Amino acid sequence: MQFEFSRMGGKLAGPSGILTLMDDLGRALASDPHMLMLGGGNPALIPEMTQLWRERIEVLLNTGAIDRTLGQYDPPQGNLQVIESLAKLLRTHYGWNVTTENIAVTSGGQTAFFYLFNLLAGQMPDGSYRRILLPVTPEYIGYSPLGFGEGLFVGCRPRISTPDESQPHLFKYHVDLEAVESALSRHSIGAVAISRPTNPSGNFLSDEETGEIVELATRHRVPVIIDNAYGAPFPGVVFQPTTPVWNESMITTFSLSKLGLPGTRTAFVVAAPQIIKAITAMSAVTGLSHGTVGQQLVADLIESGQIVDLGPKVLRPFYEEKSRFAVQCLTDALKRHTVDGRIHVSEGAFFLWLWLPGLPISSQKLYERLKLRKVLIVPGEEFFFGLEEPWKHAEQCIRLNFAQPAHVLEKAFEVIASEVSLVCRG
Amino acid sequence: MQFEFSRMGGKLAGPSGILTLMDDLGRALASDPHMLMLGGGNPALIPEMTQLWRERIEVLLNTGAIDRTLGQYDPPQGNLQVIESLAKLLRTHYGWNVTTENIAVTSGGQTAFFYLFNLLAGQMPDGSYRRILLPVTPEYIGYSPLGFGEGLFVGCRPRISTPDESQPHLFKYHVDLEAVESALSRHSIGAVAISRPTNPSGNFLSDEETGEIVELATRHRVPVIIDNAYGAPFPGVVFQPTTPVWNESMITTFSLSKLGLPGTRTAFVVAAPQIIKAITAMSAVTGLSHGTVGQQLVADLIESGQIVDLGPKVLRPFYEEKSRFAVQCLTDALKRHTVDGRIHVSEGAFFLWLWLPGLPISSQKLYERLKLRKVLIVPGEEFFFGLEEPWKHAEQCIRLNFAQPAHVLEKAFEVIASEVSLVCRG
Repeated sequence: MQFEFSRMGGKLAGPSGILTLMDDLGRALASDPHMLMLGGGNPALIPEMTQLWRERIEVLLNTGAIDRTLGQYDPPQGNLQVIESLAKLLRTHYGWNVTTENIAVTSGGQTAFFYLFNLLAGQMPDGSYRRILLPVTPEYIGYSPLGFGEGLFVGCRPRISTPDESQPHLFKYHVDLEAVESALSRHSIGAVAISRPTNPSGNFLSDEETGEIVELATRHRVPVIIDNAYGAPFPGVVFQPTTPVWNESMITTFSLSKLGLPGTRTAFVVAAPQIIKAITAMSAVTGLSHGTVGQQLVADLIESGQIVDLGPKVLRPFYEEKSRFAVQCLTDALKRHTVDGRIHVSEGAFFLWLWLPGLPISSQKLYERLKLRKVLIVPGEEFFFGLEEPWKHAEQCIRLNFAQPAHVLEKAFEVIASEVSLVCRG
Repeated sequence: MQFEFSRMGGKLAGPSGILTLMDDLGRALASDPHMLMLGGGNPALIPEMTQLWRERIEVLLNTGAIDRTLGQYDPPQGNLQVIESLAKLLRTHYGWNVTTENIAVTSGGQTAFFYLFNLLAGQMPDGSYRRILLPVTPEYIGYSPLGFGEGLFVGCRPRISTPDESQPHLFKYHVDLEAVESALSRHSIGAVAISRPTNPSGNFLSDEETGEIVELATRHRVPVIIDNAYGAPFPGVVFQPTTPVWNESMITTFSLSKLGLPGTRTAFVVAAPQIIKAITAMSAVTGLSHGTVGQQLVADLIESGQIVDLGPKVLRPFYEEKSRFAVQCLTDALKRHTVDGRIHVSEGAFFLWLWLPGLPISSQKLYERLKLRKVLIVPGEEFFFGLEEPWKHAEQCIRLNFAQPAHVLEKAFEVIASEVSLVCRG
């Protein structure tokens, strides 16, 4: 039987960068142990963290709580005690004015964005069409296929600087507020969205920049969604000081994945009650409820507040050291092969974002060539979506996961630099 | 800030029976320990099963497999080893002609149906609109809000029999094949869907009836989706012999929830490769990947084939005994209060389906009155959707979960019978 797919189904089931990335991630790992995995966003298996989860499981077994955890459904908003604890933590640690009505659980951050983008943008009841505005493009590859409608995104091109003239191989994106304001004026926008730190670039929009974007959006009565998958309040993989803020015109998401629990598919949305009610209803309709295991593993850590210490004490030092090593190691490899490559300053998350201004082929082609040499990366093209004009830069970048052991990074960077050098020499 | 929602978002986030049911389920349990929970579909905590899951967790801890289970993403199709084992099991136990290309994991059965219905029905690329055909209405409440479009369902009214004249208080639904054929001819149908055993009625469409529906649908080039949430190959809560069949025009789903693992949100879809590829892509886009814990807890049980013995050895005897007790207990309570009530023959799943032909109020109103008396049930109205003509019967039924301890059932049935008696006397 040949099956015919609906418009909507065909769109959600079509090819996408995130499908390739996730498929690569699981399949290559399972089928080829020699593949150097700098592709997807798997966190490192940090001994302190894996030990912590083992201990939490023992507690669930010893108290008998495991039976209800596995054997009963939570309500679609999420576990009510966990939500209560989280609200308390956000009030006391950050002074956020939130109660249980401001928090919902989703089955991971991607699902939260699937709900939020399609709730706030697309075809409106009055027939108008609203878009999602990305103030700094490149943005997260997973957003790109989320819309039911075509052309869901408006992306703004950032300004590019060299933050330190003595290190000309480093660059940084900055939000271009004029471009954002212009986009807000010219388009019907349902929400502004930012990943912070930004996946893929490792850029961290400063508290000041973020505040300016929120102010601008609020003036246009547009909510701002901040994706803290790698940020505050946990996992806290941000390499500079920041004070997390929230107000009712903001929607903040964070998750357990980069704490080391991606297999539990657990994220939290903090927003106005109207949004939380909608997310809860969408959770019930599209999945009844959520996985309970992740929530139970962190329940006591949220209640005690310990969960926000894991970033400063364990995760940030671990990944910051990895980041420093990776930048140095990649810089050396590029130099060895006299490759003209610039690395985005690494301010958070797990990725190096490498810009190759002289790359004569697309980053997609480079990805394919590197895969043949057993190095898995993510080509940059798919992180640039919604741009109103073509941008050569969009074909010249690749994303590299640095959460891998040092010897993997060394080997992989050597292959990447040598391959790029080969390609550039024609 | 007042938020405006898109058409699609507003629809998915709107009120629905499944939202009320799931919210009741988790919230009432958490907030009122005296509530008698005959509402949602929580499985019983069966000691043999909870013990089994504890042992499986110990194995994951002892082998160290827990670290990767929690700490890494599976590919969006699901864990490849688990899928390989399941394909082998389905080939050897049932002779199904399947490989790894015929199986995908989803985050629970509800999510599988969200994907399948919207993939196969709704607005088609040629502008036509396809519907989902339900051969026997009432059908599962969770299907009802799944469509992006309006009027996604066409429901057929079943024939009603009294299978045993000596037990006039028992009734049974039978598929009306002429009605199904007529609906297939008059409407543009994307798929036929059946829950088997049927949630809510506990009806089990016989192998013969099912074969006839599949044959009819195939003649119209329409695939048939069979929801085995309570059926084969696991959990196997079916109280009569059956031989599970599958072919490429069928799409079969089953899950770990009613085995006792609803908290892991894990289901499987068996279908043609074209469908599996689409489901995999939809999983990546709407959620990156799935929870890994459920799959790892059953991985060895699937590989060894033991998982299909759990139904006949543990679950079926347990629930069949519960069912017998519940039917007797409810029959007695109705008699005590001289209530005219008829119970659908209980052929599988966890529910009694009570038809109250003389009920002078809607079942929704009865639900509200019973909730005040601390008995949670599910009103029947919301299981009747897609019917082309009004049907009085649709307002006269309620669903009762019998997976509860005997003393809970006794108390709850007494309250229900006395309340109905009160209502009927005006």
